[in-house]
Amino acid sequence: MSDPYPFPEGFRAAGVACGLKHDGRLDLALIASDRPCAAAGLFTTNRVKAAPVLYDQAILAAPDASIRAVIANTGSANACTGEDGLARTHHTVERAAQALGCAPHEVLALSTGVIGLPLELAPVERGIDDLRAQLSPDGWPAAAEAIMTTDTRPKLAGLVHPDGYTIAGIAKGAGMIAPNMATMLAVIATDAAIDRALLQQALHRATDASFNRIIVDGDMSTNDSVIALANGASGVRVTDEDALVEALRAVCVPLAQAIVRDGEGATKFVTVHVTGAPDEASARQVAQAIGTSALVKTAFYGADPNWGRIVCAAGYSGVEIQPDRMVLWLLDADQAPAIQLVDRGVPTDYDEPAAIALMQEPEWGIRLDLGLGEAYSWIWTCDLSHDYVSINGHYRT
Amino acid sequence: MSDPYPFPEGFRAAGVACGLKHDGRLDLALIASDRPCAAAGLFTTNRVKAAPVLYDQAILAAPDASIRAVIANTGSANACTGEDGLARTHHTVERAAQALGCAPHEVLALSTGVIGLPLELAPVERGIDDLRAQLSPDGWPAAAEAIMTTDTRPKLAGLVHPDGYTIAGIAKGAGMIAPNMATMLAVIATDAAIDRALLQQALHRATDASFNRIIVDGDMSTNDSVIALANGASGVRVTDEDALVEALRAVCVPLAQAIVRDGEGATKFVTVHVTGAPDEASARQVAQAIGTSALVKTAFYGADPNWGRIVCAAGYSGVEIQPDRMVLWLLDADQAPAIQLVDRGVPTDYDEPAAIALMQEPEWGIRLDLGLGEAYSWIWTCDLSHDYVSINGHYRT
Repeated sequence: MSDPYPFPEGFRAAGVACGLKHDGRLDLALIASDRPCAAAGLFTTNRVKAAPVLYDQAILAAPDASIRAVIANTGSANACTGEDGLARTHHTVERAAQALGCAPHEVLALSTGVIGLPLELAPVERGIDDLRAQLSPDGWPAAAEAIMTTDTRPKLAGLVHPDGYTIAGIAKGAGMIAPNMATMLAVIATDAAIDRALLQQALHRATDASFNRIIVDGDMSTNDSVIALANGASGVRVTDEDALVEALRAVCVPLAQAIVRDGEGATKFVTVHVTGAPDEASARQVAQAIGTSALVKTAFYGADPNWGRIVCAAGYSGVEIQPDRMVLWLLDADQAPAIQLVDRGVPTDYDEPAAIALMQEPEWGIRLDLGLGEAYSWIWTCDLSHDYVSINGHYRT
Repeated sequence: MSDPYPFPEGFRAAGVACGLKHDGRLDLALIASDRPCAAAGLFTTNRVKAAPVLYDQAILAAPDASIRAVIANTGSANACTGEDGLARTHHTVERAAQALGCAPHEVLALSTGVIGLPLELAPVERGIDDLRAQLSPDGWPAAAEAIMTTDTRPKLAGLVHPDGYTIAGIAKGAGMIAPNMATMLAVIATDAAIDRALLQQALHRATDASFNRIIVDGDMSTNDSVIALANGASGVRVTDEDALVEALRAVCVPLAQAIVRDGEGATKFVTVHVTGAPDEASARQVAQAIGTSALVKTAFYGADPNWGRIVCAAGYSGVEIQPDRMVLWLLDADQAPAIQLVDRGVPTDYDEPAAIALMQEPEWGIRLDLGLGEAYSWIWTCDLSHDYVSINGHYRT
């Protein structure tokens, strides 16, 4: 990965334009390890799962699964494509395995794009030949670019851990984004040596605090996948779960936030904090109702401190809130309290021009205290703009 | 109500401009009966309830409740206004009762508008004097106009029943519209004599098949209210529940559909039918997920037969669907099958230009068969357009 991103040892990546996108943009990515990796995966909970999701879940269900590479295409989600779709995923991984000199069951697949469109194999075959030629330790930015759909910029993150190993990740958004994943793909690679069960558990925890906290439009896709690969090339073994979760989070959080910041049509990045809840699940439920509400998100777009919509969304969240206990603050970009809008259920005499000015900034937050307990949760969301409608009213044309 | 709407006997209505809206539009409505009415009410399930909702629920909780009038204001939802808000509702009904010569507990109140704004009493007091002067049997269109907020047209419906009684109703939308009511108000009046418990039960059933089937944006408001009044002036007594439900539905369905047709920014009215479900609740859950999805609704706006988004929404609805059993049809304006898009989970070779042409029409439907059973349900929804964002990005300015 190019500066300032660090490279995990023993991995190579590439992204090429093979013709799946018809405008010459990069559309096929490959990430490969020079040795077998412990692998973990988290996938969409949508009942409609794309062929590559079904394929990857089957591969990772094997007790002795060991992974060498991930091949990812855009242009077709390869979802709702039946047996033929699964066959095309198999064909893709077989070609990639052949190019890399490994077994097909050592290759995972990711797809994103329009649902129901067959994955064109001729461009994929040509692309895999090009990918093999271009694989390099600093190929991560090209790979990140090659998984973009309506994203406007590639998303990369990485860190060198004080313990002496490196983690890098790439991700893409940018619509069908809801908690419990989204039309999002992410691949996290580390040169640490990590037991597979530990990697899966830590990835689960890190994802719960990153990719599962983001909302663009509340639609959960058929293709959501987060893959983590650990190849051990650094010679450092990680055995402490909490430390690993923290390291993974340090990569997953900026990737997740980048997806929201680059959400379809998004002009604002808003953190919704809910405090004073009876339990964490309730706090999260309220935060999600607020962060998903079309009326709240259009008010964010218009920089309108229409706190009534926020309180209203909390009211229908399903949590037994007490209206006369709610306290609502606008927070600045550092998430520090700036303007109190509501005190025990009724509006304060707040400075409206100041509130509007704050909301015109690209990044800020809100904090709703329910006054019912001590529990806290949060989500990251964006506004709902004219451009969201433009992008999605004519996505396929 | 003006032709072609029939008037229920013994009711008078009026709508005036008292200054709650600052642009001279009608903003205060009164509906009054010349004799006591059996009354029924259904209200928002939002935990944050507006002052008039709390007030009406308390009035109707009395075993001997008997109602003479409904006063409805726009300009302020009188929600999140605390004790002061309740006092203002009390003051409003007291003034209306005084003007009509009845007791305050015989008057119900409805409010709609911005949450948290105090209800201005001086305009209300002036307006009630004007309303008293203007009350007339044909004042219903003015009353319907006076409860509009972002609605673009008044909503009225009525029928003369073969049994010799009349039902009329008015309603308003047009944002914060989700199943289980919406930022919607409706008043249904009949000159039939109906036992109060029967009226409540029949209103519940009729609302479940009308106002509880509509989606504009999925936000459930603080003020949703449906009131039914039966004054017996026709001399006809109704005792059959099914017949009454049918008569109420005949008024509530066109009002509910009118709310969706006039949804904020809506350009299309779409009925989402779900068949082949294991049970009715599952069918409804799938229909609601589809009808609420921002991606589905923007595709409707763009006349894009992007069936993948429909199947995807069904997949995350929470119902245990089987992707390879799903069959999806586009329906014409008469809800007759027109173009099959999906057959057992995979796309058909459908005529795309024909599908686009159908979806460019202002009214059509979709039918998703789950292939899991015999149960059926439906909802009415609209598209998500640029205008929705414009209206709600700058609602208060």
